[in-house]
Amino acid sequence: MYKGIIITPPFFEIGPKAYLYGEKMLKLAKAADKASKKYDVRIIITPQYTDIRMLVQETDNLLIFAQHMDPLPIGRGLGSVLPEAVKAAGATGVMLNHAEKPMSMSDLYKAIKRADEVGLVSIVCADTLEEAVAIAHFSPNIIVAEPTKLIGTGQTSDDEYIIETTSAIKKINPDIKVLQGAGISNGQDVYNVIKAGAEATGTTSGIMKAANPEDMLDEMIHAVRTAWDEVYKNQSINY
Amino acid sequence: MYKGIIITPPFFEIGPKAYLYGEKMLKLAKAADKASKKYDVRIIITPQYTDIRMLVQETDNLLIFAQHMDPLPIGRGLGSVLPEAVKAAGATGVMLNHAEKPMSMSDLYKAIKRADEVGLVSIVCADTLEEAVAIAHFSPNIIVAEPTKLIGTGQTSDDEYIIETTSAIKKINPDIKVLQGAGISNGQDVYNVIKAGAEATGTTSGIMKAANPEDMLDEMIHAVRTAWDEVYKNQSINY
Amino acid sequence: MYKGIIITPPFFEIGPKAYLYGEKMLKLAKAADKASKKYDVRIIITPQYTDIRMLVQETDNLLIFAQHMDPLPIGRGLGSVLPEAVKAAGATGVMLNHAEKPMSMSDLYKAIKRADEVGLVSIVCADTLEEAVAIAHFSPNIIVAEPTKLIGTGQTSDDEYIIETTSAIKKINPDIKVLQGAGISNGQDVYNVIKAGAEATGTTSGIMKAANPEDMLDEMIHAVRTAWDEVYKNQSINY
Amino acid sequence: MYKGIIITPPFFEIGPKAYLYGEKMLKLAKAADKASKKYDVRIIITPQYTDIRMLVQETDNLLIFAQHMDPLPIGRGLGSVLPEAVKAAGATGVMLNHAEKPMSMSDLYKAIKRADEVGLVSIVCADTLEEAVAIAHFSPNIIVAEPTKLIGTGQTSDDEYIIETTSAIKKINPDIKVLQGAGISNGQDVYNVIKAGAEATGTTSGIMKAANPEDMLDEMIHAVRTAWDEVYKNQSINY
Repeated sequence: MYKGIIITPPFFEIGPKAYLYGEKMLKLAKAADKASKKYDVRIIITPQYTDIRMLVQETDNLLIFAQHMDPLPIGRGLGSVLPEAVKAAGATGVMLNHAEKPMSMSDLYKAIKRADEVGLVSIVCADTLEEAVAIAHFSPNIIVAEPTKLIGTGQTSDDEYIIETTSAIKKINPDIKVLQGAGISNGQDVYNVIKAGAEATGTTSGIMKAANPEDMLDEMIHAVRTAWDEVYKNQSINY
Repeated sequence: MYKGIIITPPFFEIGPKAYLYGEKMLKLAKAADKASKKYDVRIIITPQYTDIRMLVQETDNLLIFAQHMDPLPIGRGLGSVLPEAVKAAGATGVMLNHAEKPMSMSDLYKAIKRADEVGLVSIVCADTLEEAVAIAHFSPNIIVAEPTKLIGTGQTSDDEYIIETTSAIKKINPDIKVLQGAGISNGQDVYNVIKAGAEATGTTSGIMKAANPEDMLDEMIHAVRTAWDEVYKNQSINY
Repeated sequence: MYKGIIITPPFFEIGPKAYLYGEKMLKLAKAADKASKKYDVRIIITPQYTDIRMLVQETDNLLIFAQHMDPLPIGRGLGSVLPEAVKAAGATGVMLNHAEKPMSMSDLYKAIKRADEVGLVSIVCADTLEEAVAIAHFSPNIIVAEPTKLIGTGQTSDDEYIIETTSAIKKINPDIKVLQGAGISNGQDVYNVIKAGAEATGTTSGIMKAANPEDMLDEMIHAVRTAWDEVYKNQSINY
Repeated sequence: MYKGIIITPPFFEIGPKAYLYGEKMLKLAKAADKASKKYDVRIIITPQYTDIRMLVQETDNLLIFAQHMDPLPIGRGLGSVLPEAVKAAGATGVMLNHAEKPMSMSDLYKAIKRADEVGLVSIVCADTLEEAVAIAHFSPNIIVAEPTKLIGTGQTSDDEYIIETTSAIKKINPDIKVLQGAGISNGQDVYNVIKAGAEATGTTSGIMKAANPEDMLDEMIHAVRTAWDEVYKNQSINY
């Protein structure tokens, strides 16, 4: 776990995957930059590698993460994504082990250590409760608890899964943040996930496939803030 | 074969792999930029993905290529390198099928077609004569005939291999350019390869491991020009 | 190309993939063994690795092939399929580069050489005309010209594709046999493909998904013989 | 964790990898079969897939494991190793995630569940303490705690690593057996590892590279028994 940057909940992750790049990516990033400030919600964006440096230079509030990196050291390795190069491009962190870019257990462990070493926040994806718990032993900064079977379906994780995974991860290492993903289609879904106790959520298809991605983004970040404040106020009253 | 850009011999390829990135990469690229102009030799550089856009913006004469790309279409595919994103970052081309990033035959064929589609020059690596000939049927712009067993050894391909591979590739498609690599350590090696009939050559370790990479680069590009002119004059006399 | 065994056309390939194993595999193999003798058609079966030795021992006429093998030498490589082990189990040959088990160009080339070395007939899959031609330069014994997009669809390659691929492969190396696959559902499909000029065909789903696989197998092998004899008679008249 | 077979310590694993196959594999297996009975030590052997059925049929006391299997269901998947096929060949279990055949975290989790489902004992390799602990959450039958950097070096894990990994795994699930590997070269190494508290150990290179593999095998299994009895007697005295 890299300690140089603390990402305070609530936060939200936007995954452009291979949907967006270049000018359109920049346009969405600028909308996210505004929404982040407007609603005081941290936003992680994982652009194509080639767009990292541009987004870092052109935005003020966003947390730009690489979609993946390889655990190799400086040297050989043509075609790889070098941790030091990701850091040098200005990225804040790196996503690892997404269902579309699975890593061997050994490479995942090494990549988290490499992220710590070069100063990158690591956000690691887990398909099941058991995998989330296993990954917690590798001490990444953030775990995405996202049942693979729900990715892109528009069906969200139920409240029980959210509470169970968050609790199981925190039991092993309370410093790990937990992002609850899968199936976020609109502001209401975001609201529900945060109200159910999540510190963070995110989406790819929910924004990429929206009629107006920038508007959908604003709606979702607004929902994060609204839900978070309601949870927070309740806690203030109760405790 | 992408026809939008013609790379005229002689040319030279520098492969920084995972050795160089950020500021040091930029420094070497600027030296290459000068050498390219000074000696009128086209230079291809394949930086880390994250440095492509920066090198495109900061240099005038270089041909910036991605180290690899995936043949996927716009859409899903987290962690992939999207052809359209490589193009949008300003790259001129893409390297494919290097021994350190091997591709399945089917993916390689698709990636060359995708390069043609988005407007990227394709440079494809071949380990043996048979593979070079096979790849020629996929019509990339450039084939690197580089026996894998020589990579990084400081031992160069012999003249017979250079003539045999170049001739075999041209027989299938005379428009494909042939780069003869493997084992280039200094200007003399470069001179010998070009004199033996190569249209292009290149190196990774020869420059990365040099005491002064910028000086070695200048020496090598100078050698390209010297050898090429000698071959050219001979041809002028003869024909 | 391994010269120790000549597989004379017409022949037929049955690919049980991960559908059949153990007793059920043996039952189908025995039915194929009978059909091979009855119709004088060579039948290649590619069982799970664990069933190779059993099928070799329990049948008389079949050609048992591995579904894949790795090009590694004797030594390390846990989890690999060693060429010498495939040969020692009694296999006649090995399939390579199927769309469900793609190989890098370099590994494919090495695996064909390894097959030659240990004495295994190599049957290599190609997705497109260009790939079939490229693979022909590696001199396998048999090329499967099977457009990946048709696998399992029940839609067969058209006559033009059959003639074009067969002719293009033979032009590079007339000793390579060509198997035309993809989309074979019943005896009529088999008949049509052989009549269109194929030396061989085959199927996975056509037999695995049949109500009675043994009956469907008999129907298909019968169709091979019928179509082949008709083509052969025409040739006798013409030449 | 498959509960149908209990493997009682002490036990020993021999990994022929791609070193042995066919007749020579059978010869070593028969020596192991005798040693297992002679010293009352359970012996796991992981032959090439093609030799599983033969070793099951030709030996009485051995535990034959596959070197790997894929988590796929019955159906498509040419070139894969189907769990049901491994079971049908008579295997007792399967090794997973060896450093030479790494699996993604998600595939590893699924493969362990598939092993449970078809009735195979799972033995999973871990490179580091953290990975061993993570894997423990997936409930395999056995974990191999084997620092990758020591594989084939002739240098053994130190006592502290043995105690620390065994204890950490048992803390998560006391039913998981722990095999301590890496660097076993002779009987003395085996003795030391068992004396240090291991329930099991094993080797590949220690036997494959011995002047007389059958003799070395006997020496090692003898050492397992001797060390185990010494530890056991001490325990009897103490408790």
